[in-house]
Amino acid sequence: MRKEGKKADTFILKGNICYSKTEKEVTTIPHAYLVCRDGICQGVFESLPDDYKEYPLTDYGDALILPGLVDLHLHAPQYAFTGLGMDMELLEWLDTRTFPEEGRYGDMEYAQKAYRIFTEDLKKSATTRACIFATRHVPATILLMDMLEEAGLQAMVGKVNMDRNAPDYLCEDSPEKSAEDTLLWLREVKGKYKNVKPILTPRFIPSCSDRLMEMLSEIRREYDLPVQSHLSENKGEITWVKELCPWSSFYGDAYERFGMFGGTYPAVMAHCVHPTEEEIALMKKNQVFAAHCPHSNTDLSSGAAPIRRYLKEGIRVGLGSDIAGGHVLSLFQVMVGAVQASKLRWRLLDETQKPLMVEEVFYMGTKGGGAFFGQVGSFEKGYEFDAVIVDDTRLETPRELSLKERLERVVYLSDDRDIAGKYAAGRRII
Amino acid sequence: MRKEGKKADTFILKGNICYSKTEKEVTTIPHAYLVCRDGICQGVFESLPDDYKEYPLTDYGDALILPGLVDLHLHAPQYAFTGLGMDMELLEWLDTRTFPEEGRYGDMEYAQKAYRIFTEDLKKSATTRACIFATRHVPATILLMDMLEEAGLQAMVGKVNMDRNAPDYLCEDSPEKSAEDTLLWLREVKGKYKNVKPILTPRFIPSCSDRLMEMLSEIRREYDLPVQSHLSENKGEITWVKELCPWSSFYGDAYERFGMFGGTYPAVMAHCVHPTEEEIALMKKNQVFAAHCPHSNTDLSSGAAPIRRYLKEGIRVGLGSDIAGGHVLSLFQVMVGAVQASKLRWRLLDETQKPLMVEEVFYMGTKGGGAFFGQVGSFEKGYEFDAVIVDDTRLETPRELSLKERLERVVYLSDDRDIAGKYAAGRRII
Repeated sequence: MRKEGKKADTFILKGNICYSKTEKEVTTIPHAYLVCRDGICQGVFESLPDDYKEYPLTDYGDALILPGLVDLHLHAPQYAFTGLGMDMELLEWLDTRTFPEEGRYGDMEYAQKAYRIFTEDLKKSATTRACIFATRHVPATILLMDMLEEAGLQAMVGKVNMDRNAPDYLCEDSPEKSAEDTLLWLREVKGKYKNVKPILTPRFIPSCSDRLMEMLSEIRREYDLPVQSHLSENKGEITWVKELCPWSSFYGDAYERFGMFGGTYPAVMAHCVHPTEEEIALMKKNQVFAAHCPHSNTDLSSGAAPIRRYLKEGIRVGLGSDIAGGHVLSLFQVMVGAVQASKLRWRLLDETQKPLMVEEVFYMGTKGGGAFFGQVGSFEKGYEFDAVIVDDTRLETPRELSLKERLERVVYLSDDRDIAGKYAAGRRII
Repeated sequence: MRKEGKKADTFILKGNICYSKTEKEVTTIPHAYLVCRDGICQGVFESLPDDYKEYPLTDYGDALILPGLVDLHLHAPQYAFTGLGMDMELLEWLDTRTFPEEGRYGDMEYAQKAYRIFTEDLKKSATTRACIFATRHVPATILLMDMLEEAGLQAMVGKVNMDRNAPDYLCEDSPEKSAEDTLLWLREVKGKYKNVKPILTPRFIPSCSDRLMEMLSEIRREYDLPVQSHLSENKGEITWVKELCPWSSFYGDAYERFGMFGGTYPAVMAHCVHPTEEEIALMKKNQVFAAHCPHSNTDLSSGAAPIRRYLKEGIRVGLGSDIAGGHVLSLFQVMVGAVQASKLRWRLLDETQKPLMVEEVFYMGTKGGGAFFGQVGSFEKGYEFDAVIVDDTRLETPRELSLKERLERVVYLSDDRDIAGKYAAGRRII
């Protein structure tokens, strides 16, 4: 291999490096070197090893370098109404806000306008990876994937399946048509992208007939796809699932019986606010990821998920903005929301379950959720190289701060103005 | 009077005007005229009356014009550690974070640096009025008042009193010394400012001896001062007050017995998270303002205040950022926090008390809290002219939005980048 070729794919970033190995603590190394080779992190070094001395180095001075943040659950089409209609619970909100908005994505001109805004804002944020719901529409879903690919964001995107309990303008005509469109979509995107991948996306049990779930399960196996959906978000929803699937023992069991609840492949379930003991046990057994969406769970009055319990059980937890059930795209703000929700849960509901610490939510927003994408969300050797550079000079203070304290302030106080650079899978995108 | 003289004190702003008359709804008038004469609002007009046609007009185009926001409770010296140490409850947090920081304000060089940052950030925000705790130090308190005056912000600022249960470096030597310093401070600032006023500020019952409270009560009467303090924030604190004041029936009663709980003069009590029935009744009788600080109450795990109950009882409620128990200076974010806390309170604690609506928290952050300053926080005729101009073009959306919806998005999504102008008491300050 030519030396120039090698050179082009290896580079070094210098700055104040913070990342998680475990959820217990954040590793902070001031003025250190972070090496990327062929999109893979080679580790963090206090002084640069001789092997890397000839490669290009970007010195970010006193800025912080963190792993790119991972958003395990969000709805791209809903970004258009972020911050609106936050006075409803889930099922009413779906009928009056969400479904009418999603209905518009049959119109490619509207989709173009809306997804451009979404993609630009996601690019400006600290997020490098996301699991994204589109709508049921194949052309608009492919458009969204094209835009994310172009922006360099690493994403799993799902064409949504829904063949019941949705308004006519949004409901798919039959399970067969839903499955057919899914196959059409999968064939069209196959091998098309470097950054973006498809993920199977039955909206949730109430909007997918048994027949559709069976057909999707076959497609899942055939294409070896991961799965994303919603689980036990709201009490009304859980009761409804019981009525719709009287043969299921609990909500998660309804997915399980169709082979759509992980085990041999990655599955991520958003919310998991009101699990039963059996559901927790099955999530653990099948290594299902919980996408914790604290702002959404608060904004839609769903409740506060038992995350401390999940951590104790060893259940895999990442964070989700759940745009637009949640009103903030910033994963830092979602981390704050997770700490806050856990504090009110502790104070108001269950004082045996200690609040979350900032170390834990930082872990969830990086390595915890990143695991859904493989070796992602850390700077340990062998991890995919996602990094975000945060210049915190705007967050002025008269105090001397440790690197750990500066990170804490970045989590609590920073916004997209402070993002000075971003790399996903080894490619610079800001 | 010369025409030019009149002209200089009268001006008109044009834009999309939103304000509250009641907590039930927001009045929105697109492309309307807002008239200020001698610092007083003359009302909102859909077309400009002939009387005002010769006066200067600033056209803010499609921007929103709102009443300036009112922050009823915050600690200026704590701004230096905003977003740090959010893993503690109140009493531990005071000992390990707050008192050591406040101890630094004996050093005028440090105070200069810290209060400059605070004042600049408050000026950039949507807040025009605030009730502010300084520290026990007279020179630094006066410095803060000088800076706020210079910035054109309307504020009540208190030199803090604390003669017990504080570390040596911060505790005042005796009740007499505390009272003496208070008098020194009051004499020094008397008649000095147009924008800033002193407010009597016993920190809270645990840090003020009975003797000090008696002396402060005399000073209050002599100088006809309003009062600010803390009330029923945290359960440990409430138990402690019971021990310290065995002669009191409840926390608020301890203030009442010293004549420091409103009635004939304005008093604002921060938090009011865990009131007893008697406390609620006394707050109502004495027209005590509750400064609701939802972020602080969540960040310090204090709980969620019963604001719906307060509204039903007709208790006066405003919002407070409570920097740095709360981590956000933005009153818009405090409004969001108030809605969110009320939702989790409803879901986790008491389903008889309905969550707050955006109309209600907008009212609290403007006219509700504004009432502590007199006729403040609205654009009704006769109100003091505090206005903030918000340019929401950054909050892009493909949808057509009503003015009410745009306001809702400003509350949920805007930040200081979006503030295009600000007027306090008729003077332009941004």
